[in-house]
Amino acid sequence: MPAVCVIGIGLIGGSVLRAAAAAGWQAFGATTSPTDAELARADGADVCTDVDTALRRAAAEDALVVIAVPLTALDTVLRQIARYAPDCGLTDVISVKEPVAARIAERLPDARYVGGHPMAGSATSGWAGGSVDLFRGAPWVLTTEDDTDRAHWLRTARLALACGAAVVPASAREHDAAAARISHLPHVLAAVLASVAQEGGSLALSLAAGSFTDGTRVAATRPELVQAMCEGNRDALLAAMDDALGRLGVARGALATTGSLAATINHGHQSRLQWAQQQAQATGEFTVPFLEADAPERLRTIGAAGGRIHRISGDVLDGVLPLPQ
Amino acid sequence: MPAVCVIGIGLIGGSVLRAAAAAGWQAFGATTSPTDAELARADGADVCTDVDTALRRAAAEDALVVIAVPLTALDTVLRQIARYAPDCGLTDVISVKEPVAARIAERLPDARYVGGHPMAGSATSGWAGGSVDLFRGAPWVLTTEDDTDRAHWLRTARLALACGAAVVPASAREHDAAAARISHLPHVLAAVLASVAQEGGSLALSLAAGSFTDGTRVAATRPELVQAMCEGNRDALLAAMDDALGRLGVARGALATTGSLAATINHGHQSRLQWAQQQAQATGEFTVPFLEADAPERLRTIGAAGGRIHRISGDVLDGVLPLPQ
Repeated sequence: MPAVCVIGIGLIGGSVLRAAAAAGWQAFGATTSPTDAELARADGADVCTDVDTALRRAAAEDALVVIAVPLTALDTVLRQIARYAPDCGLTDVISVKEPVAARIAERLPDARYVGGHPMAGSATSGWAGGSVDLFRGAPWVLTTEDDTDRAHWLRTARLALACGAAVVPASAREHDAAAARISHLPHVLAAVLASVAQEGGSLALSLAAGSFTDGTRVAATRPELVQAMCEGNRDALLAAMDDALGRLGVARGALATTGSLAATINHGHQSRLQWAQQQAQATGEFTVPFLEADAPERLRTIGAAGGRIHRISGDVLDGVLPLPQ
Repeated sequence: MPAVCVIGIGLIGGSVLRAAAAAGWQAFGATTSPTDAELARADGADVCTDVDTALRRAAAEDALVVIAVPLTALDTVLRQIARYAPDCGLTDVISVKEPVAARIAERLPDARYVGGHPMAGSATSGWAGGSVDLFRGAPWVLTTEDDTDRAHWLRTARLALACGAAVVPASAREHDAAAARISHLPHVLAAVLASVAQEGGSLALSLAAGSFTDGTRVAATRPELVQAMCEGNRDALLAAMDDALGRLGVARGALATTGSLAATINHGHQSRLQWAQQQAQATGEFTVPFLEADAPERLRTIGAAGGRIHRISGDVLDGVLPLPQ
């Protein structure tokens, strides 16, 4: 029975703890919130309020340690891991991957680490917001670099699959670039759109409906969460913002000089259709023997093509790929 | 029993015809689509396929003529009105107001005209897409200029109220500026966001969920409709795009130099909250005797403050205003 130790049991960490336990893992965790610990224990979870104790137990049981705290608390947890569980395999569920990998390389240079990002969420937070099936069917990115420890990667992938997710292999850099475009930029554009509408005064806000409501929904999120997420992915987000600025500037120029927005609107429409088709279409299967030398590169190619791993048999990975468009 | 003649019985025109008839107006219409005419007649509506005949009847019965065709068909209909019903009071339900007013001033300089824009829609189109309660509770902008014919404005406002809408008074210019910020810019930003995500490749599209899905929903709309709507409001949309470009550029600069997006994200969050509060909050009432000399200006002030007219008694308008924030 594999063991997993989850540090931080909020929405994501609490859901990992529930799902891993339900899948038969020996799952335990720690939180600095007495309230969350009490709620979790009332739900039958094995949770304490002393991170050091939990990490000592993780070391004794060779548990996979899941860092599920906000980026701002990462350094504190890394110091505790260095002291009490320096040999445990590590993963995390924080929404940016290069900055986390850099801090771990700095503070725990010998650690076996695979970065993780389950692409699931909800408007709620804390232990009470989580659920055993939060990750069911969701993509769960695992960082896959040429020097990633293979056995540790496989164990982390088994955890993600046990939680009901599909594993998407990508380098930390590829993950951050993609997240900037599909998650962080949408939050920035929602804020900009809400501000432009508000600048139109009460008449504009009075008439605002469908397209405004959808386009600004995530601007209702707690701003400190949005800020931490976006600022933590600065370099990739800057590139995505430059792309958006360029496209918006081209559209502005076309409208001013030719009166036409055809290129902008048609390209956006086609892109949205392509997304919908990729979600919906029939898929091709793949199989990768993970211990072969070029496996990380092959896996990254599969992730880059929109592929997902659904099964691990021994050291062979099986999954599905979107059909080429 | 007041009479109304609706030219074009698609989603909006067909819903006006149904709602006016249900409210006791003598409502009839015309469409160049034999299919839509047949569907409408099967639903008990008084619809013919000959616009000239409908307009001759409108002239005979002094009906209010509602132009409910796309902007691209406006000139054709104006020529028919000039020939068969030049003295009828006119309104329209097209989504931009200054360009329509300009064409009417050019082709029918003596017409009594009040521009209209019911802020309701749906993903469907044609007669079959409409419904008797499409406008229930929705804002319906009526252009209110200093030289607007008062009696004609009142009759048009009674039609909007009979359809279940609340009347929002605004100048054509004020309407177009607001619509650019809360309707047309969201469509442009959705197209840009979809394209930036697609540029991130299949990995980005594979990971795209919540914030991407919401932010690009309207990019799934038929592109020719979005194009006509946005391009028809060129000047106001250019101003809104410049505002968005400026704010996005400032955000980019702040992130690059200070690492912080606090100003952008907090302002967007506050703006979204202000919109939600304006929708939800308790309201103050107002009453305007419409025949007084400064009534158009007073009404525009009310519309600019987010006010809506819910009742007309004789020539007195009653409505509600958001409380000042």
